[in-house]
Amino acid sequence: MNKKYILLTPGPTPIPPSVLKALSQPILHHRTHEFGAVFEFVAGEMKAILHTRNPVLMMTTSGTGAMESSVVNLLSPGDKALVLNCGVFGERFANIFKAYGLNPLLLSSPLGFAASKEEVDSVLKQNSDIKAVYIQHTDTSTGILNDLEALSRVIRQRAPEALIVVDAVSSLGAEAMDMDAWDLDAVVTASQKGLMNAPGLAFAAVSPRAWKACEAAKLPRFYLDWRTMKNSLKDKETPYTPAVPLVVAQAEALRLIKEEGLPNVLKRTADMASYARAWAKDLGLKTLAQNPAHILTAVYLPTGIDGNQLVNSLREEEGISIAGGQEALKGKIIRVAHMGYISQEDLKAGLDALKKRLSPVLEKK
Amino acid sequence: MNKKYILLTPGPTPIPPSVLKALSQPILHHRTHEFGAVFEFVAGEMKAILHTRNPVLMMTTSGTGAMESSVVNLLSPGDKALVLNCGVFGERFANIFKAYGLNPLLLSSPLGFAASKEEVDSVLKQNSDIKAVYIQHTDTSTGILNDLEALSRVIRQRAPEALIVVDAVSSLGAEAMDMDAWDLDAVVTASQKGLMNAPGLAFAAVSPRAWKACEAAKLPRFYLDWRTMKNSLKDKETPYTPAVPLVVAQAEALRLIKEEGLPNVLKRTADMASYARAWAKDLGLKTLAQNPAHILTAVYLPTGIDGNQLVNSLREEEGISIAGGQEALKGKIIRVAHMGYISQEDLKAGLDALKKRLSPVLEKK
Repeated sequence: MNKKYILLTPGPTPIPPSVLKALSQPILHHRTHEFGAVFEFVAGEMKAILHTRNPVLMMTTSGTGAMESSVVNLLSPGDKALVLNCGVFGERFANIFKAYGLNPLLLSSPLGFAASKEEVDSVLKQNSDIKAVYIQHTDTSTGILNDLEALSRVIRQRAPEALIVVDAVSSLGAEAMDMDAWDLDAVVTASQKGLMNAPGLAFAAVSPRAWKACEAAKLPRFYLDWRTMKNSLKDKETPYTPAVPLVVAQAEALRLIKEEGLPNVLKRTADMASYARAWAKDLGLKTLAQNPAHILTAVYLPTGIDGNQLVNSLREEEGISIAGGQEALKGKIIRVAHMGYISQEDLKAGLDALKKRLSPVLEKK
Repeated sequence: MNKKYILLTPGPTPIPPSVLKALSQPILHHRTHEFGAVFEFVAGEMKAILHTRNPVLMMTTSGTGAMESSVVNLLSPGDKALVLNCGVFGERFANIFKAYGLNPLLLSSPLGFAASKEEVDSVLKQNSDIKAVYIQHTDTSTGILNDLEALSRVIRQRAPEALIVVDAVSSLGAEAMDMDAWDLDAVVTASQKGLMNAPGLAFAAVSPRAWKACEAAKLPRFYLDWRTMKNSLKDKETPYTPAVPLVVAQAEALRLIKEEGLPNVLKRTADMASYARAWAKDLGLKTLAQNPAHILTAVYLPTGIDGNQLVNSLREEEGISIAGGQEALKGKIIRVAHMGYISQEDLKAGLDALKKRLSPVLEKK
């Protein structure tokens, strides 16, 4: 009855009380000055977090819809694109391409590795007709962080006009992002991770180079059409009825980030990541990511421990939710998130509970 | 400071207090038994409201995304489809088709008229290769109601295998719907009107005939792919992170509808519609819809009244939101909604305030 309820999953992440409260405000009509003011605040604060002067579009979808929008708005049939595949979400990009009849080049990193800038350079050298490079900022399936600054530098040298498209769904608000300085063309993200809101809202920031591509792109799109969203920006609204409570809640979550100060948020997240990695090292658990992000820590489980069972028993017996492995990693790893509204206390409680369950097995070794 | 806040707009409609409260529950992870139970309840109650045994899919989008899903999942390039166009939302269907390179036949009703079954019959007779007929159950731009039962009978006689696709975004929970008895193949709807929830959640019920078409359809789709959603149904979840609070809130709203009893909800809505029509008649205002739906009442404004100004002053001075006309009807009509959680008291307050503003002009005539 009196179980804890601690969410250490990489999305949805816990929601701050004032953001939960904002979700339950009486609903505003979406074609009013009141809503326009909320919309404008959200768009402005998103620009601040992205470090960009590009317009930020808002859509009512899961992160996957935002990823799809970055494909259908920028490409045409026959276009050659490169996907830097570092896990489940790189594969998802590839699957979106295939659904639209495109066959992207896939540069797959070994499990747990981020994209190699040398390999990216080599692929671009051999394929001068690559129109766009799609990159996960972080991939929650392994917890890797891609070095966007370094990758962008390599891409710009070899293919100055290629579009650099970034999936920052799981990274924004937890990892540093500098869209304009790094010369990124499109960054898509979603509400439910570092942005501390419920899932269902997504964003796309779009550079002038990407707008040019968007106007020329021939893949079909309607609900996810960035052009329609851009047209509505001047009226401070979305083309179709948005998930109003999620927008109002996003404004409050962004206000909290502003109040704490983005550098402080990023430092707090980095500190928790260090704590989690030290915990793993201390127990002798091997971490998965070679260039680990601050968003989550993924560790291999010792033989004799079934990851699915561990995740379930932790949730059912202690009220603590962590994530297991996805696809080929199912049962073999656990992933503990430390981003957004996850607190140092919650993280410590989760890692303590895990240690209690893992220690007996580890001591036998 | 103490202004009323009365929402008489056709979506979003007001949200009951217990549904608002449900929106602000601490967030559940979407791959858990707890969420699965909520998901299953929502899917089951949606079947009850639709009167169907077909599976009901859930997606995180505005209603327009659900409309688009009914195009991309059922058709292939070159397919001939008929759109019964009774206003803004019929045109939206046509625009979605065009975005995907399809050129639908458009059967447009005169302003304020529902689709004519004689004309539908005649178009089908002349075009035996029509694969699907797209129909708005109600069109909020004019307030018309299409007689789905009669239209379906005509379509089934002339084109037994044609898919009958219904946009019930603005009608469900306010107008009678009998998907299986009327032999409809796909019904899409959304959360923010008769279903008394916030916007952002949408549904599609899909018949066996439509599933066959879905498997064969060649239009591209990923986020809106019904096949992926169907595959996730067995695990009581959605393929991508859903807007969890909207699902939890939808369960509460559906519980309220069940508690009141759907026939009582429909009767209450019909009674409010009668009240609004009698009010218009009493004032000598001409209603727009020839076959009016119960969801809203649209009336022409007397000359000398600017509809945009009327809508704005009502909102700003009295805190009452009604809707004006869309596109060509901008400024010329007003639309007062009476569906979902809109109460008799709120409707009366809105119509009283309108009468006060219109009477001086009407008396001069």
